Amino acid sequence: MRIELNQELGLRVRLLVAYDGAAFSGFARNTGVVTVAGELEDQLTRILRHPVVVTGAGRTDKGVHAWGQVVHFDTFADLFDPVRMMRSINNLCAPALVIREAEAVPPGFDARFSAQWRRYRYTVLNTLTPNPFHAAQSWHVEAPLSMPDMAEASQMLIGLHDFSSFCRRPPVGPDEDPKTLMRNIWSIDWRDLDGERFQVELTAKAFCHQMVRSIVGTLIDVGRGHRRPPDMAAILEAQDRSVAGNLAPPHGLCLWEVGY
Amino acid sequence: MRIELNQELGLRVRLLVAYDGAAFSGFARNTGVVTVAGELEDQLTRILRHPVVVTGAGRTDKGVHAWGQVVHFDTFADLFDPVRMMRSINNLCAPALVIREAEAVPPGFDARFSAQWRRYRYTVLNTLTPNPFHAAQSWHVEAPLSMPDMAEASQMLIGLHDFSSFCRRPPVGPDEDPKTLMRNIWSIDWRDLDGERFQVELTAKAFCHQMVRSIVGTLIDVGRGHRRPPDMAAILEAQDRSVAGNLAPPHGLCLWEVGY
Repeated sequence: MRIELNQELGLRVRLLVAYDGAAFSGFARNTGVVTVAGELEDQLTRILRHPVVVTGAGRTDKGVHAWGQVVHFDTFADLFDPVRMMRSINNLCAPALVIREAEAVPPGFDARFSAQWRRYRYTVLNTLTPNPFHAAQSWHVEAPLSMPDMAEASQMLIGLHDFSSFCRRPPVGPDEDPKTLMRNIWSIDWRDLDGERFQVELTAKAFCHQMVRSIVGTLIDVGRGHRRPPDMAAILEAQDRSVAGNLAPPHGLCLWEVGY
Repeated sequence: MRIELNQELGLRVRLLVAYDGAAFSGFARNTGVVTVAGELEDQLTRILRHPVVVTGAGRTDKGVHAWGQVVHFDTFADLFDPVRMMRSINNLCAPALVIREAEAVPPGFDARFSAQWRRYRYTVLNTLTPNPFHAAQSWHVEAPLSMPDMAEASQMLIGLHDFSSFCRRPPVGPDEDPKTLMRNIWSIDWRDLDGERFQVELTAKAFCHQMVRSIVGTLIDVGRGHRRPPDMAAILEAQDRSVAGNLAPPHGLCLWEVGY
């Protein structure tokens, strides 16, 4: 299918993208390193023969995976064939980066600002010995974890809170107001995959920087018994980054789905 | 636990080993490349302070994974602590190579010759687009596959047959008789993991070289409709390597379990 172009506005395209975080230095374009946005922009610019800028729903950090990252860009190519473009990029970039879907969308669609919710998944491998086949996509924690304690602690984070204790505060320019770190977590659900792997899914309209990994790191402290579930209230209240646990490693995290 | 040594015989040790085939040039020791046996022997020789030779239940080819490889070796170290040895090797080699179990066994135990059966698993990802998270451990086949046809074709291979059509014939010395390629397959079971990944488990007392990958390559030809299930009888009968399908790629294959 080839789509004809409105010569003034161009054509807005939505991509559904999966990638292996280990192959990229994060999502955002950055000089001198291979990033997801950089790779997509370079490939699209080559195929479409005009400069392309992509916008993603979530700016995943270095090492973080995605199954359902959503990206948009505008093309001014005369004839645009989404399936052909998708195949061409997948032939070159798979399996590190795979375009799962590509389609023309109305010009008002914005991968970042139209998103109604983001869902992240974090996987923990809770066994004595590591596992060669799960190592790339889970955090190996040897110490026994209490699932009920982690689930109880998770519930205390649901709802609208100031997540300053769990977020890296973004830099503020001289004429800017500091950005709010108020966020509304809709759900935090743990599930036991096979008695060894545990997965937690966090859903919110939006997350601030490093929020998911910081929450998971703190929940694992609870699971190990280093903290108690009720401690979560005090951590939230402190509004102090140094009070929460360490960041969980990036390779356990995956941007799973974005809702519009 | 430390185990005291019979100074004359040494102590025979059994290891249960998992590894990522992508990290090694196969199981067997080979000059100038990193192999599973080479890595184990080097680490054990360093830890135990005497030369160590390992024997494995299956000599997996380059790129083939293992979850349940079994290995034995003899140690003459004065005091041997299997748990400490296991931790020491895992600290250095995980997650590419992981020792899952280590224990002293009677001197008559032989990882290769005491084995009663081997079970291999092969995973196929049958989707239009590749998947970054399954790519390392499955063969991505785009064409739709007929599971009933592959299951029917599989049944024709069960039992005692000459598998010359599916095996790389080992070299024969000038004074040797050619080795038999008669093998007895106990079972070939397909299962659907999630509507996208299909796994086949093959169990036999022993397999000859490249037999599993050659069988899977031929069964996928059947699944695609390039061959019919009854063709399997003619392929077996031909006793000719060139009649069967191509080798399935090594990264879909895993030595799953060995029975004693």
